[in-house]
Amino acid sequence: MRYAVVIAGGLGTRLWPMSRADRPKQLIPFIAGRSLLEIAVGRLEGALPPERCLVCAGQAHEEAVRNVLPQLGPDQFLGEPCGRDTLNAIGLCAAVLARRDPEATVAIFTADHVIEPVDRFQAIVDSGYDLVDQHPEALVTFGIVPTGPAIGYGYLELGEPLSGESRRLGRFHEKPDLETTQRYVEAGAEKFLWNSGMFVWRADTLLECIRRYMPQNHEGLTRIADAWDTPRRGPVLDEVYPTLTKISIDYAVMEPASRDPAATVAAIPMPLRWLDVGSWPSLAKTCSHDEQGNALAADRTLLIDTRGTLAVSSDPAHLIATIGCDDLVIVHTPDATLVCRADCADDIKELHRQVESRYGKDLV
Amino acid sequence: MRYAVVIAGGLGTRLWPMSRADRPKQLIPFIAGRSLLEIAVGRLEGALPPERCLVCAGQAHEEAVRNVLPQLGPDQFLGEPCGRDTLNAIGLCAAVLARRDPEATVAIFTADHVIEPVDRFQAIVDSGYDLVDQHPEALVTFGIVPTGPAIGYGYLELGEPLSGESRRLGRFHEKPDLETTQRYVEAGAEKFLWNSGMFVWRADTLLECIRRYMPQNHEGLTRIADAWDTPRRGPVLDEVYPTLTKISIDYAVMEPASRDPAATVAAIPMPLRWLDVGSWPSLAKTCSHDEQGNALAADRTLLIDTRGTLAVSSDPAHLIATIGCDDLVIVHTPDATLVCRADCADDIKELHRQVESRYGKDLV
Repeated sequence: MRYAVVIAGGLGTRLWPMSRADRPKQLIPFIAGRSLLEIAVGRLEGALPPERCLVCAGQAHEEAVRNVLPQLGPDQFLGEPCGRDTLNAIGLCAAVLARRDPEATVAIFTADHVIEPVDRFQAIVDSGYDLVDQHPEALVTFGIVPTGPAIGYGYLELGEPLSGESRRLGRFHEKPDLETTQRYVEAGAEKFLWNSGMFVWRADTLLECIRRYMPQNHEGLTRIADAWDTPRRGPVLDEVYPTLTKISIDYAVMEPASRDPAATVAAIPMPLRWLDVGSWPSLAKTCSHDEQGNALAADRTLLIDTRGTLAVSSDPAHLIATIGCDDLVIVHTPDATLVCRADCADDIKELHRQVESRYGKDLV
Repeated sequence: MRYAVVIAGGLGTRLWPMSRADRPKQLIPFIAGRSLLEIAVGRLEGALPPERCLVCAGQAHEEAVRNVLPQLGPDQFLGEPCGRDTLNAIGLCAAVLARRDPEATVAIFTADHVIEPVDRFQAIVDSGYDLVDQHPEALVTFGIVPTGPAIGYGYLELGEPLSGESRRLGRFHEKPDLETTQRYVEAGAEKFLWNSGMFVWRADTLLECIRRYMPQNHEGLTRIADAWDTPRRGPVLDEVYPTLTKISIDYAVMEPASRDPAATVAAIPMPLRWLDVGSWPSLAKTCSHDEQGNALAADRTLLIDTRGTLAVSSDPAHLIATIGCDDLVIVHTPDATLVCRADCADDIKELHRQVESRYGKDLV
């Protein structure tokens, strides 16, 4: 049977002050009134039955997740007691689903992106499930056409055709340096794609890879999965999960598998509009713009002689007014205001650290 | 007897969004926790008995004024039912005080300024009262040493010495054009001073001038003063005050008197630190600054790579955080945020107009 899991981890510190520890970016309704999590789950509507679509997120956010996704059944939320990076979140989902259904094929989706159009997205996802049906041993990743030499992504080096649009993966390069990414992007989308962070595989295939490359994590995840649908879930999860080596699925599985002759790794191109909503400038791309190129994610704004500026407030009664501003990010929340030059938006990570150290946890 | 009246009218639109119709700038505690009105009244402490220090402001603000000035007796607040510019506010005070004390000498003070040092200020004010004792027919104005060719002020053209530091006024030039102001400033402080908006005169002398230059206003003010300390105050004030010609004391009295051979107009230089707190950049000058020249009028700030920026919030729990900002004004209030290039701060008047027309009276 086919399953989908939307992973809604991550802190979203670059979307501070809107994104907070108790209200991470995936749960904030800032894309035309919808949250990234709602959008990610909604994107699967019709592709598979709703009861086979799960969400994996921090335990602390279960109530908030269920508030935006009331359709989620009791077994459809997988809560992490703490963040142990993507290997363990994805591995946990695979281990739990493999116990529930030994034949489970699981697609993994992010909740950090706007992807359009949805019908083409669903068709490509379907072709991924089909590919796993044909090649049960395959780890399948979806690849995005690079729009530039971004250093924050994994790069998929494509090999020979496998079936339909899919290609065997030559190598998986996690976060190469700028010079290398430039070379990759110049080589073209026939040779290199960005790793989307979306995958499809049989649960047992992934678990076998984790056993090979990260045996201790495999053992811990297996212990947790054995206890999951029993009264022992809580104690075992709390005991074991925090001890698991913190590592991403890309470093832990995809890179080694792409070098492992015993593994089959494949990539399916996903040549769609794909926006990584991880920062204010990327959020700005999802907003409506005025004639001066200002992006408005606030109900009340009044911008005079202002260009290229993003104004954000979740309070419908709050007015953001500007005069003479160029290329700023302005974010209002009840207890913190951010004004940041758009090209400094990556420094919000550092700002976030300083806010926590100077003013404590209440503001982060 | 000597009296002082602090005039706290004016809308303070250039200090929006902190200054609002129901909380004008004179009542906002943004100078190290004190309001401009408290500072103006406090500046007179010891110079004359507190019961002879009055406040004139909008009726609607009486409660707010009495909250910051609990020492104000029942007869020491003069409330205007509506704003009719400075001639009528000052004329009302003179007319009421002349009824109470036909020998009253009245000094008029603004509530828009920081003036230091206070001891020298009081000594100069004393010399003004003394001058009126010697010259009961004189209209005496206090003059500020110009710091540049500002076009928003009246200019006092000084004539021959009168007594002590005081000079007869050659001419009073209300708001000359830029070219003229440049000429005045180049001529030096021996020839030209700024009008401070602070005056001292006998109440009957001023009323006689109003009778000569603005007879209808004189008649109306007299009717109101006759009713003031009687049960008829309310109805007469509401009937007459709104009909008075709206005009400043400078255009209505000081300019014509300076051309009138029958009048004695004198100026006393006040060579002190005098900050007109009418705009955000001028408020910034009253604030503590950090090493990057940022002015902080907020309890919680965190400014990274930011210079020459003013951050204002009256909410002690609210954080203003910036990255990469130069020369901005950032003002947080619960229902409106302003981000404005410092050199566009005069455009806040126009912004204020647009806010009112687009979002209504609640935000202005």
